Amino acid sequence: MADHEDVDYPVLDERSLPAYLARMPEVASRLGGAPADWVVQEIGDGNVNFVFAVRGPGGDVCVKQALPYVRAVGAEWPLTPERTSFEYRALLEHGRYVAGRVPKPLHYDPHLRLLIVEYLGGLTVMRHGLVAGACYPNFAEHIGSYLAQSLFFTSDLALAGPDKRILMSLFHTNTEMCQIMEDMVFTEPYWDHPRNRCTSPQLDDERYQLQRDSRLKIAVARLKTQYLANAEALIHGDLHTGSIMVSLDDTRVIDQEFACYGPMGFDVGTLLAHLLINYFAQIGHGTPKDPRSKQQEWLLETVVEVWTNFRLHFCAFWETSGAGDAYPSLFFADPVGQTALAEERESYLDRLFIDTLGFCGAEIIRRIFGFAHTADFDTITDPDRRASCERSAIRMAHQLLVGPSQYQTITAVTVAARKFGEQFGGDYNK
Amino acid sequence: MADHEDVDYPVLDERSLPAYLARMPEVASRLGGAPADWVVQEIGDGNVNFVFAVRGPGGDVCVKQALPYVRAVGAEWPLTPERTSFEYRALLEHGRYVAGRVPKPLHYDPHLRLLIVEYLGGLTVMRHGLVAGACYPNFAEHIGSYLAQSLFFTSDLALAGPDKRILMSLFHTNTEMCQIMEDMVFTEPYWDHPRNRCTSPQLDDERYQLQRDSRLKIAVARLKTQYLANAEALIHGDLHTGSIMVSLDDTRVIDQEFACYGPMGFDVGTLLAHLLINYFAQIGHGTPKDPRSKQQEWLLETVVEVWTNFRLHFCAFWETSGAGDAYPSLFFADPVGQTALAEERESYLDRLFIDTLGFCGAEIIRRIFGFAHTADFDTITDPDRRASCERSAIRMAHQLLVGPSQYQTITAVTVAARKFGEQFGGDYNK
Repeated sequence: MADHEDVDYPVLDERSLPAYLARMPEVASRLGGAPADWVVQEIGDGNVNFVFAVRGPGGDVCVKQALPYVRAVGAEWPLTPERTSFEYRALLEHGRYVAGRVPKPLHYDPHLRLLIVEYLGGLTVMRHGLVAGACYPNFAEHIGSYLAQSLFFTSDLALAGPDKRILMSLFHTNTEMCQIMEDMVFTEPYWDHPRNRCTSPQLDDERYQLQRDSRLKIAVARLKTQYLANAEALIHGDLHTGSIMVSLDDTRVIDQEFACYGPMGFDVGTLLAHLLINYFAQIGHGTPKDPRSKQQEWLLETVVEVWTNFRLHFCAFWETSGAGDAYPSLFFADPVGQTALAEERESYLDRLFIDTLGFCGAEIIRRIFGFAHTADFDTITDPDRRASCERSAIRMAHQLLVGPSQYQTITAVTVAARKFGEQFGGDYNK
Repeated sequence: MADHEDVDYPVLDERSLPAYLARMPEVASRLGGAPADWVVQEIGDGNVNFVFAVRGPGGDVCVKQALPYVRAVGAEWPLTPERTSFEYRALLEHGRYVAGRVPKPLHYDPHLRLLIVEYLGGLTVMRHGLVAGACYPNFAEHIGSYLAQSLFFTSDLALAGPDKRILMSLFHTNTEMCQIMEDMVFTEPYWDHPRNRCTSPQLDDERYQLQRDSRLKIAVARLKTQYLANAEALIHGDLHTGSIMVSLDDTRVIDQEFACYGPMGFDVGTLLAHLLINYFAQIGHGTPKDPRSKQQEWLLETVVEVWTNFRLHFCAFWETSGAGDAYPSLFFADPVGQTALAEERESYLDRLFIDTLGFCGAEIIRRIFGFAHTADFDTITDPDRRASCERSAIRMAHQLLVGPSQYQTITAVTVAARKFGEQFGGDYNK
C-alpha cells in the first residue's frame, strides 16, 4: 500500500493492485494468466486521480482510484472521492445508448472509490493529438452521434417522467463537482479571483473590459442559472478534448466525474469551444514550414460537422424514438400534428443552438482568464504570440455570449472564427 | 382501528386517535387536559385522505393520514402514501420563509404516513367562500407575499448551488404525485382520455377544436417540458383555491402533497387560473337580485394585485437577499452593474410573466376538459349557462396558451377576461 495517512481507505499502487484485482473473477479472467504476469503502469496525467493500465496475457484493464483531494496538490485542495461513483453511474447510464463511445465499466468499489474500466489501447488523448497537429476524419460523425445519443435518450423526449426524476435525484447529489463548474466556468473569470491567471500584461486590457462588461456578465449569469436549474439531460459535464480519447477510427469519451442533469447546450458548447480553442491556437503553433493550414481547415469543418451531425441524429432519434413524456406522441398522431411536431423539432434545435453558442463562449473565456487553461494555448511559448491567438478567441467568445442569435447557422460561426483569427493572429504561420 | 385490510399499517380513526396522540408530549400538551377530554371530528372532504380536527381544552390540532390509494375510490386507484412525507417536507422548507402562511407542522409519523399540523380554526376553504360570493380584501397581499417568499427563497437566486441540489434531489423522488400533474394538466385534456369529462354536448365543438389545435398542443408540450425539467424553485404544485384556507384577515396554504422542484410560473399561473375560473363562473352564479358584479370586480382586481404584489416582493427580495449562486452579487457591485442587474430583474420577471400566463391557460383548460373539475363551474346547475361561462374561460385560456406575449401587463389580461366574459356569458346576471 502507498503511504497516504490522510486517506481513510487503502490507496492501491503498482505493487498492491494485482492481488486486489485477482479477487475479481471477471477482471482476472479478462487479464488472463496469473497475477504475477500482470504489468501495472501508472498512466494518469498525475493531477487529480491515480490511473493505472494493467496488462495481462489475455487482455488489459484500466484502474482509476480517487483520493479525497486533488492528487497533485494534496490535502489543501479537498475533492470529494465520490466523484468516481458518479463517473461509474454515468458510464452505466450513458453506456445504455452510446456503448461504443465510452469505455466499458467493469467494476466499481465504493469503499476504495476505485473504478475499473476497459483499457483503451491505441487511443490517445485528443487534445495531445490536436496540439501535435493531427486530424481525425471520423471524429465529427462519432461525437455527433455520441452527443445526440447521450443527451436525447436521457432527456424528457425519450424517458418517462418518473424514470427521469429518479435519475435527476441521483445525479443532483453530485454537488461538489457541480460546484466546481459553477465557480470555475460561470463565476471566477468575471472578477479578480485569486486563482485566476492569464497571459499578462498582454491581455490585461481584455481582462479589464471583461470584468466591467455588465451585458456580458448578465449573459453569463443567465447561462449559470440554466446550469443550476435546467435539467434537460444527463450531461458529461466536462466534455473538452482532454476528456476524449481518439484514434483514426475510434472515439471514446472518458472522465465522467462531472456528470449531472443539466442543459444539453453545456456539453455541445464545451466541445465546440475546445475545437475553436485549438483552431485559434494553431495559428500560433504554425510556422512557415508547417503552417497547419490544413488542420485549421479541418477544425472549422469539424465544428460545422459536429453540430450538423448532432442535430441530424437528434432529430432522427426524436422522430423514431420520441417516447418520452415531454411531447406526447398521441398529441401529434395525425398528419397536421406530424407537420407541427416536425416544425417544433427544428425550433427546439434552433433554441438549443443558441444555448450551445452561449456555453461555448463561456467555456472559451474561462480557459483564458480562469484557473484551468489548455495545453492548446499554453504550449505557445512566446507570450505575445499566445496572447494574439487568445485575443482572437476572446473576441469570438464575446460575440457568442452577448449576441448568439446573430449566428443563424454553424457555418456563420466558423466564418466569424476565421475573421477573428485573421484579425489578431493571422500573421504567424504565413 | 378502522378496518383497512389492504393497508399494511394501522389506520387511525376517531376512537383510536386520542391514545395515539397522548404518546406525543408536544401534541398532548398543546391539546391540554386528558385524552378523554379530546374531541375528534373527521373534517376531510373525504376524497383522498383522512383528516381529523382534534380539540382539547388547551388547543386544537389537525391530523391527516394517507392511505395507499384514493380514499373515495379505494384500492383500484392506488396513490402513494409517501405523499404525506412530501407535504411535511414542503411545510418545513416553505415554513422557513412563509411561516405565517402555512400551518405549522407538529409531527410526522413515517410509519403511519400521518401528519399533525396546527389546526386552522375560523378559516374556510377559499373556493367554498368564493363560490358563495365572498371577497377577501387581504388575500392579494397575503398570497403575493407567500408566492414571492416560497419561490424566491427556494430558488438559485437565494440558495447556494449545493444546498439547492440536495433539495432538488429530495423532492425529485415525489415521482408519483408529479406524474399525476404531468398526465392530468398537460396530457389528458388534449386527447380523448377515458376519464375526461366536459359539459356536453354544449362544449363538444370546443373540445373537438382543442384536440385538433396543433399550435395549442405545441404550447402545452413546451410547458410540460418546463414542468419536467426546469427546477426553478420548490413549488406547491397544486395551488388552487381549494388548497387555500382564508378568513377576512388570514390566509394559509395547505395540501403540499404535490410539492416538487419546478417552474415558478406553475404556482403563480395555477392560482391566477382559479381566480379567473371563479370570475367566469360568477357570471353564471349571478342573478338579477344578486348579480355578483362587485365580487367580479374584486376578482379581477385581485388577479392584478396578486401578480403586482408578487412581482414587487420578488424583486425586493432579490435586491436585499439575492445571495444565491445564480446571479453572483460580486458581478454587479459597481453602479453600472447595479443598473444592469436592476434591468435584468425586470427582464426576469417579464419572462416569468409569460410562463405564468401559459401555465394559467393550461390549468383553466384542464379544469374544463380533464378529469378534475371545480365547484365554481360545477355548481352552475343549468348546463347551457355553465357551458357559456366555461366557453369564456376556454377562449381566455386559448389566448394565454398560444399568444401570451400579446399581454404586456396583468391589467391587459383582466381586460381580455372581461371581454370574453361579456362575449359568451354576459347576459345572465343583468
